[in-house]
Amino acid sequence: MGANERSEVISFLSKDYAVDHEKIKNAITKYEKNQQAFPDLTIATKPHYYDLLKSIGNLSNGVKFVCDFRADLLQEIKSKSEDLLPLRRLDNTAKDLLTLWFCNSNLRLERLTWKSPADILQKVAQKEAVHPVHGLIDMQRRVGPCRRCFVFMHESMPREPLVIVHVALMDKIADNLQDIIKRVQISAEDEEQANTAIYYSISSTQQGLSGIDLGNMLIKNVVLELQKETPQIHQHSTLSPIPGFRSWLIRVLKGHSEFGEVIDDKTIQLAQTETNITNSNDLKNLLLNEIESNNVPNFQNLTLHLCAKYLHQAKNASGYALNPVANFHLRNGAQMYRLNWGCDLSARGIQKSLGIMVNYKYNLEKVPTNSARYINGKYIDAHEQVINLL
Amino acid sequence: MGANERSEVISFLSKDYAVDHEKIKNAITKYEKNQQAFPDLTIATKPHYYDLLKSIGNLSNGVKFVCDFRADLLQEIKSKSEDLLPLRRLDNTAKDLLTLWFCNSNLRLERLTWKSPADILQKVAQKEAVHPVHGLIDMQRRVGPCRRCFVFMHESMPREPLVIVHVALMDKIADNLQDIIKRVQISAEDEEQANTAIYYSISSTQQGLSGIDLGNMLIKNVVLELQKETPQIHQHSTLSPIPGFRSWLIRVLKGHSEFGEVIDDKTIQLAQTETNITNSNDLKNLLLNEIESNNVPNFQNLTLHLCAKYLHQAKNASGYALNPVANFHLRNGAQMYRLNWGCDLSARGIQKSLGIMVNYKYNLEKVPTNSARYINGKYIDAHEQVINLL
Amino acid sequence: MGANERSEVISFLSKDYAVDHEKIKNAITKYEKNQQAFPDLTIATKPHYYDLLKSIGNLSNGVKFVCDFRADLLQEIKSKSEDLLPLRRLDNTAKDLLTLWFCNSNLRLERLTWKSPADILQKVAQKEAVHPVHGLIDMQRRVGPCRRCFVFMHESMPREPLVIVHVALMDKIADNLQDIIKRVQISAEDEEQANTAIYYSISSTQQGLSGIDLGNMLIKNVVLELQKETPQIHQHSTLSPIPGFRSWLIRVLKGHSEFGEVIDDKTIQLAQTETNITNSNDLKNLLLNEIESNNVPNFQNLTLHLCAKYLHQAKNASGYALNPVANFHLRNGAQMYRLNWGCDLSARGIQKSLGIMVNYKYNLEKVPTNSARYINGKYIDAHEQVINLL
Amino acid sequence: MGANERSEVISFLSKDYAVDHEKIKNAITKYEKNQQAFPDLTIATKPHYYDLLKSIGNLSNGVKFVCDFRADLLQEIKSKSEDLLPLRRLDNTAKDLLTLWFCNSNLRLERLTWKSPADILQKVAQKEAVHPVHGLIDMQRRVGPCRRCFVFMHESMPREPLVIVHVALMDKIADNLQDIIKRVQISAEDEEQANTAIYYSISSTQQGLSGIDLGNMLIKNVVLELQKETPQIHQHSTLSPIPGFRSWLIRVLKGHSEFGEVIDDKTIQLAQTETNITNSNDLKNLLLNEIESNNVPNFQNLTLHLCAKYLHQAKNASGYALNPVANFHLRNGAQMYRLNWGCDLSARGIQKSLGIMVNYKYNLEKVPTNSARYINGKYIDAHEQVINLL
Repeated sequence: MGANERSEVISFLSKDYAVDHEKIKNAITKYEKNQQAFPDLTIATKPHYYDLLKSIGNLSNGVKFVCDFRADLLQEIKSKSEDLLPLRRLDNTAKDLLTLWFCNSNLRLERLTWKSPADILQKVAQKEAVHPVHGLIDMQRRVGPCRRCFVFMHESMPREPLVIVHVALMDKIADNLQDIIKRVQISAEDEEQANTAIYYSISSTQQGLSGIDLGNMLIKNVVLELQKETPQIHQHSTLSPIPGFRSWLIRVLKGHSEFGEVIDDKTIQLAQTETNITNSNDLKNLLLNEIESNNVPNFQNLTLHLCAKYLHQAKNASGYALNPVANFHLRNGAQMYRLNWGCDLSARGIQKSLGIMVNYKYNLEKVPTNSARYINGKYIDAHEQVINLL
Repeated sequence: MGANERSEVISFLSKDYAVDHEKIKNAITKYEKNQQAFPDLTIATKPHYYDLLKSIGNLSNGVKFVCDFRADLLQEIKSKSEDLLPLRRLDNTAKDLLTLWFCNSNLRLERLTWKSPADILQKVAQKEAVHPVHGLIDMQRRVGPCRRCFVFMHESMPREPLVIVHVALMDKIADNLQDIIKRVQISAEDEEQANTAIYYSISSTQQGLSGIDLGNMLIKNVVLELQKETPQIHQHSTLSPIPGFRSWLIRVLKGHSEFGEVIDDKTIQLAQTETNITNSNDLKNLLLNEIESNNVPNFQNLTLHLCAKYLHQAKNASGYALNPVANFHLRNGAQMYRLNWGCDLSARGIQKSLGIMVNYKYNLEKVPTNSARYINGKYIDAHEQVINLL
Repeated sequence: MGANERSEVISFLSKDYAVDHEKIKNAITKYEKNQQAFPDLTIATKPHYYDLLKSIGNLSNGVKFVCDFRADLLQEIKSKSEDLLPLRRLDNTAKDLLTLWFCNSNLRLERLTWKSPADILQKVAQKEAVHPVHGLIDMQRRVGPCRRCFVFMHESMPREPLVIVHVALMDKIADNLQDIIKRVQISAEDEEQANTAIYYSISSTQQGLSGIDLGNMLIKNVVLELQKETPQIHQHSTLSPIPGFRSWLIRVLKGHSEFGEVIDDKTIQLAQTETNITNSNDLKNLLLNEIESNNVPNFQNLTLHLCAKYLHQAKNASGYALNPVANFHLRNGAQMYRLNWGCDLSARGIQKSLGIMVNYKYNLEKVPTNSARYINGKYIDAHEQVINLL
Repeated sequence: MGANERSEVISFLSKDYAVDHEKIKNAITKYEKNQQAFPDLTIATKPHYYDLLKSIGNLSNGVKFVCDFRADLLQEIKSKSEDLLPLRRLDNTAKDLLTLWFCNSNLRLERLTWKSPADILQKVAQKEAVHPVHGLIDMQRRVGPCRRCFVFMHESMPREPLVIVHVALMDKIADNLQDIIKRVQISAEDEEQANTAIYYSISSTQQGLSGIDLGNMLIKNVVLELQKETPQIHQHSTLSPIPGFRSWLIRVLKGHSEFGEVIDDKTIQLAQTETNITNSNDLKNLLLNEIESNNVPNFQNLTLHLCAKYLHQAKNASGYALNPVANFHLRNGAQMYRLNWGCDLSARGIQKSLGIMVNYKYNLEKVPTNSARYINGKYIDAHEQVINLL
């Protein structure tokens, strides 16, 4: 099926298989006579495509089909600018079904090693979005000593790792990407010294499952698994990228952002020490110059201060953290633990976040509370060393 | 948790976690202002326990928990005589979720052999409801040459076979249970002569999944699997019990049934040949005497005629076949193929169906049509040799 | 091939495929001219059937064939009374080859659980020689909590457990068979309390491998495996039968044994306390009466004393322990640890050893020394509590 | 252990653990008195290191140790020029033991696919000696559609493929390496058209097993496996390199070979057609010029004629084919089937054999006869199209 046909099928389904308002009205009438008839309302308000997609899931390979279908649908939504509501409704229905099919109980946690099937490892290598895998030897290292790679598998796609997390076992909370990615000589003995698990990369492979909380479930399952397998590990933290920090900073410095004024007294105070500048506009110009040069800025404290502002204070339309990675881990119940200067000095790292990376720490006892406080009250649990930067 | 507590939890949930009519009314108001608000109606009409059960499925072992919970709930419904509506609603919700979790794509078809894990085989032996397994040697035979045993497995209960079908590979459509159950000497060579698969036992192990169409899906998957694995097999048929025939016959002969008059011209005609009786009441008395003696009746043609009436003409409240096994296979799209006299002469077999058994034949091309005609129009596809008995 | 034919083939092979003395003489002549020609002597003195059997091992299933062949050969040797030398030579050759094929490096240690393949567990149950397995439930218990069952597998017979050891994890060195065999309620938690591994049954399944030290290798591999898997286990001991004690005792009391006089001062002294008899002949008659009654004798200390004599002092023609089980464990380097009165009160247990059983303790540090001292010097390491009985 | 120490240990073992001639003399004396004492001679003529190596095999990892030890030993033999006899004797003993340990019954045939463990596939890629594997994608192709890769595994080295054969399923006997190695688009459907299995690469991974006939056993097992799995395959042939042809040809043309005169009437006749030269010396000079230019020679018929001579008529000291690959396949019972011009035009291919490759065809019915005739009578079964080249 070509792209055009696909697009037409999606459009047709979203409109001609939608709800029947005549039926809804009848169900309302019925309900108003007898409240016990409320299930008729549930049924009447379900679009026809709900039953269609549900039936497809009952065919062999049907769940995979619906997942791929939703990937196309999301593509369609992205590429269109109008008449989006029917597509979004169709997407909601597909997502609801997929959420049930891919619930935690239906997923199988698997640890990958160098003895795992080559096709699975190949897919893991191809899908690594955060720190691209460079060849076979690199992949071998990522499942070697002091490393763990876990995936979620599902019966409906037996050879597809759905979500992938890479973990490094270390003797401290990593402040440096090189220690994880480049270090060559690691032996099995080093594992005995390890006390910290660093979750340095989480990737999803299925567009069709986006928005379904598989990453969160995977991390929590892995934490439990590591507690059983390696009881010496008592700290769990990420080393996470901060995509969007640099472009956000340019926008706010140029005044093109809803964030408002980014320069406050603390900023000026830091600027004075590091740059001798006290004028807000001069400072903005200097910073813009620095940042747009594509180098790591000279002013460490100042930049960390601005980055902490981005992570802690910049919000999206719903009032949650603007940075999607921060939002992901805060939702999961993690603590914003530490900003790390000069941590990812690759071109990509500088382009995204001026080389800064951040740790989110998972303290198992606090995770449920933190998660609830963030989701319900938008409260961000940040460690003192982050707060002090603000 | 004891039985009483369980009963209380169920009752509490079914009432206090039900729908909130205030919310429904608000959603109706909203909908009547703006039809695009219909999804709010779907949400408002979903009982609170829907979200609760869905969340439980997202815990590890949660799906199994909900399945076990529904088994308790069904028990509760069976044991109560009043105030059943809230329980039935709760059951509907649980069943809806379980239907999605246990959809075809999420199930794994497995063939069991004597090399399969002992715990799985033990469970299969324990759950065999149709023809009880007698010891290890009997189980070994049921997975041996000319036999197949297939099960559905699900990620959420990794050591539990959910539905089990036993198949015998034979050189004709079996008219005799002994050929299948008792025959001792079978060799792998006999498989080459086989052209027919006899599905002689289907069992479910999970009360909590009752009403979900796993048996049907299993049979269809097995038919496809056998077509691949043993292409010489071109006929697929069951050899099925007829539970309830004898007790139904006693009821209709005594006039205690809604079926009405069971004796018609054809009956009298057969009676004349076999019994010399032409009077309807005398015939009824004679038959009752015969049947209540717990032996196989002397009058083969007469009894087969009455059995064909039971299978083909006796209906339940919804107008489908009264006999549950017939209803199951007709729904699946099978043809009522042949009644077999003296087929199961065990005490159990005589007690249930006067020793008669029946074949339902699965003709793959006709299965979809048959299924649709039965479900939508209550049409029963019966072979000529069944029709001729009526 | 019938038994007669088999017997003829064996006889033919043992004679017509034996060594060629003409060749040996030539090789000697050659060697006497040039010592470097000694390999020709090795070759010339190898019977023709050596090459034949070796070639068979190179066919698929060949190693199994040779193993089965040797089982027949041993049967043949047992059933004949004359002309045994050619058969024994043939057996030596077959045993040499099998010893190499079934060396430790070629064997795979496997732990069996209730999830293991049913065919393997069935074979283990059938081959249990020491304490027969009673049905499925009994087998399930022997691979359940606080129990271990290990086997050696070999590539050439992929579905055949070759040697089997059953282990009970307990909180002391067992003095009682019932604790192991009959105890019904055991939970996984009990394993945490366990500090002792009791090897209560070792069986071989292949007649053709008799005399090859697989049992010894298996025990040592299992000890190492348990040290890794359950570090809380620090004692390793058997609870072993004493086959032949009762019949030996009858023989010596009747004077039909080479053992000589079994009644010494210590015996008389014990007899005085327990029986008031001081005359050697009276004592013998009393004991014979007791023993031949097929009950447990009344005189515990006296019987234990005589049993210690049997185990520690009765020797075979080569000067090693007469009791084959004792000889097996002493060769392996175990210590004769304790005699247990009233330990196996089954008819079988009384028939064999008047209900007494014995522990052989494997102290890993002492095993190599003990083994060497026994094999080279016939020294038996016995614990004080055994010595004190003598 | 460094190389020097290893060398010393080997030397020490080969001398100080050799046979004891005093013992041999005693055994001879004993034998001359009583012929039945011949086994003493076998024992006396076995060097002490025989028992030592045998005992090592009985340790865990012992067989692997002996295999690695023999690899070192062979290295030592290669690097030394004198005093080789004791080393060769030690090698004979090690090889005898390894031959028994690695007999056919003890090996497990495994088919590798892209779902096989990555570590095993990595080793296969690294060990591919005939046509080096270029990266992951290349390896994936070699286990993809229309390709097969089989290995022998052994219990004592569970992650080591010992011998590897690569097979291409094609619709004719390949005359062209590019068809096999470079062809990119192959689909599973092509397998149905295939009728020929081309064995295009056989590699061993263990130096320590050299001289043990694993390659031959592997090919024969694979032929049987393919007959079962893909019954449409009815031709089995190799596409083999001819290492040594070019250097041999240079030697014979320069007169530096024991082969004698390579130019005969047929050669001159071919030369006349292709070169207009009729003088033997002129022809030699022309050919040497051509060959030493490192290009494919211009004279196809002439070169094929000379290559056929090399393969069919050049012999080693024992009278078998000088070319080791030819010798391998002829021993196995294959037929020398066809020479293929311009078949491997890589620098390597020209360097070794002027781009020519050869097919050896395995006709299963003729394999045993051919093998016996070659081994016993040095008879080479060559197809007419090879004979016609001579």
